[in-house]
Amino acid sequence: MNKPQVPDFLKNIRVVLARPSHPGNIGSAARAMKTMGLTRLYLVEPKAFPHEEANVLASGAVDVVENAIVVSSLAEALADVSVACALTSRRRELSTPLSTPRETAPELMARARDGEQVALVFGNETFGLSIDEVEQCNRLVTVPGNPDYFSLNLAMAVQVMTYELFSHSGVSVDYLKPEDRTATLGEVDSFCGHLEAAMADVGYLEHRNSERLLRRMRTLFHRAALQREEIDILRGFFKQAQRFADGTLPPRKKSGD
Amino acid sequence: MNKPQVPDFLKNIRVVLARPSHPGNIGSAARAMKTMGLTRLYLVEPKAFPHEEANVLASGAVDVVENAIVVSSLAEALADVSVACALTSRRRELSTPLSTPRETAPELMARARDGEQVALVFGNETFGLSIDEVEQCNRLVTVPGNPDYFSLNLAMAVQVMTYELFSHSGVSVDYLKPEDRTATLGEVDSFCGHLEAAMADVGYLEHRNSERLLRRMRTLFHRAALQREEIDILRGFFKQAQRFADGTLPPRKKSGD
Repeated sequence: MNKPQVPDFLKNIRVVLARPSHPGNIGSAARAMKTMGLTRLYLVEPKAFPHEEANVLASGAVDVVENAIVVSSLAEALADVSVACALTSRRRELSTPLSTPRETAPELMARARDGEQVALVFGNETFGLSIDEVEQCNRLVTVPGNPDYFSLNLAMAVQVMTYELFSHSGVSVDYLKPEDRTATLGEVDSFCGHLEAAMADVGYLEHRNSERLLRRMRTLFHRAALQREEIDILRGFFKQAQRFADGTLPPRKKSGD
Repeated sequence: MNKPQVPDFLKNIRVVLARPSHPGNIGSAARAMKTMGLTRLYLVEPKAFPHEEANVLASGAVDVVENAIVVSSLAEALADVSVACALTSRRRELSTPLSTPRETAPELMARARDGEQVALVFGNETFGLSIDEVEQCNRLVTVPGNPDYFSLNLAMAVQVMTYELFSHSGVSVDYLKPEDRTATLGEVDSFCGHLEAAMADVGYLEHRNSERLLRRMRTLFHRAALQREEIDILRGFFKQAQRFADGTLPPRKKSGD
């Protein structure tokens, strides 16, 4: 299976960092974005930018940092945007609807797919988003987490939010899966028949509740999602054991004899 | 609404870092865990631990770092575990089932709820998990992401995986929402009636397609999820305008006159 492509419409989703203090966080945020297929980064009044540390922490996402657009107000970053999500973990006395990344992701992806511009707005590391900044957005988004320790750092919040969007992109991880060689139910049944024959041949079913024992084995191997190759290995082993039992093969000397 | 509690059974889920090189990553991973309600950290042969940098990056999660259990083999960290997930982004020629965090989270949470021990196993920052380490796990988990830049760092991977688990914990963010004061459909209808009356009183409906215009307004205000307080503000404004229109109030002087 070939590597899938990141959908082109993800370019309609931007990450906006409002007044970031630490250039390292800009780099980490850029890296987080790129791992989830996003590339458009806006920086509102960054304290220090460009900066060596941003590039270092961006790792392979230096292109995102280098293409970042620096603006002097949040309004500028949002001028052509139709849905702006303010990421916040504080209780806000606002009527702006509050939702989780998971609840809001399908709508954001649908709008981006339709060509609308979508923004994810993250506040300063220490102070979060100001009330003025929040009021310029038309959605509040809160990452669910430990109510007693809600201390997701800036780049982590970017990672979770962009992961959530990406998980609605339809890009699957199937290309990482090896070719499926799961045995069919018929193959498993026939394997269980061989197991029963081998058990009978070596006298293992005598003086035992063979019906119950074989039922357990059948359940085990149906549950185990056997691969064809595993069946081949086990059948080879059974055959060898059967050859000793029927005298086709002479007994082997024990090692050490 | 009161702050919800993190469910107690999350203590049955541990994070295992196999051979971490950078103490800072141990700290960041601990912080990520705690934001998602996890506390049990196992370190297999950490290169440098304990270490000042781990504590610094842990921020408010120093307790998780301090309670971390250092072991000398992955087997030791998994001895009492029934489901161990190897986090990996490489194609592996193994028949171990591969799934995404979202696909696997419900099962992991159900097992932890039943008292089983669950482990999330993360490999070294540079080399990932070795084949030996992966074979000690009974699940493969891959975070979906950009197939052309899959460079989620260690703590980011911990954050995404633990976020995914937490999102199945049933702990909602509702406690952050202000009290719901959404107007009912009846209140919105009655508000629209007032709007119509006010428009009529100021003569705005004359010579216009009033039916179509009022239908648009009704649609707008039903869509807007009006709050009661917003209705009160607008009704107050309408009343004031009506008082000028019917002569109850004398015309005001323009500012500057």
